Amino acid sequence: MIRDLRKVSEKLEGTAENHDKLKLWLRLLTCTIKVENLISNRLRAQFDTTLPRFDVMAALARSEGDLTMGELSKWLLVSNGNVTGVVSRLVKDGLVERRRAKDRRIQYVRLTATGRRQFKAIAAAHEGWINQMLDPLSDGDVRSLMKQLSKLKGVH
Amino acid sequence: MIRDLRKVSEKLEGTAENHDKLKLWLRLLTCTIKVENLISNRLRAQFDTTLPRFDVMAALARSEGDLTMGELSKWLLVSNGNVTGVVSRLVKDGLVERRRAKDRRIQYVRLTATGRRQFKAIAAAHEGWINQMLDPLSDGDVRSLMKQLSKLKGVH
Repeated sequence: MIRDLRKVSEKLEGTAENHDKLKLWLRLLTCTIKVENLISNRLRAQFDTTLPRFDVMAALARSEGDLTMGELSKWLLVSNGNVTGVVSRLVKDGLVERRRAKDRRIQYVRLTATGRRQFKAIAAAHEGWINQMLDPLSDGDVRSLMKQLSKLKGVH
Repeated sequence: MIRDLRKVSEKLEGTAENHDKLKLWLRLLTCTIKVENLISNRLRAQFDTTLPRFDVMAALARSEGDLTMGELSKWLLVSNGNVTGVVSRLVKDGLVERRRAKDRRIQYVRLTATGRRQFKAIAAAHEGWINQMLDPLSDGDVRSLMKQLSKLKGVH
């Protein structure tokens, strides 16, 4: 993600007009990018994997049964093409397997036993990282942030 | 960005353990992705442009003088390669111009007059969209969110 955050923030701080919502948006974006970058680096360093791979594995781990490629794409909110590439690499690594349905136009995907085991380990580490990174927030901060951010659920 | 948000959230809601910080992180991510997607769609529909193009133009508009490609990459926190592609397309469209320094290994980039004009129009629309999307937040919410999120500034 390309984001010219520092310059924009500095420029806005110096202006008299009310840019509070724009400043808040830039702060939200900065926090999210920082945390995502840290997670991405740790996934690579500690598990030799990437965020898209982790997200695909999370979708498969949490689904009730096998998912079609179409369902998987829908959950992940990305184009089928991207998911296909990520799934292919996971298959190559023995973490995911593909299966043809009776209707041979449909293909199901699911985690292998190795994939499930690896996902559990990564997910536990991931939650540990988040707890550590968000540690400066008190329980009250967390509750209040949840409540305020929920007002943006219907954003359109 | 691939993110299996709904499934993860639903799963976590149903568990007894304390996953408050992970839930907050997923909510932060959901809000950010939703707003970014909306902005991305409007940039495309109303200005036939993209977030990376807008971000490069913002960096150039806000810099004091011309930027080298290296400086531009640093501001944008992405690899030189990506920035090069975005800049090339902006040059082709007459919005950005390249200039060789005396030291011919260094190349400066800056907005053309047309580029500056277009950036001003897009930036004004962009702030309008943000104000509209964040409208559900009261002034108090905005102040409180800024304060709480600032605790994550040193995240590492």
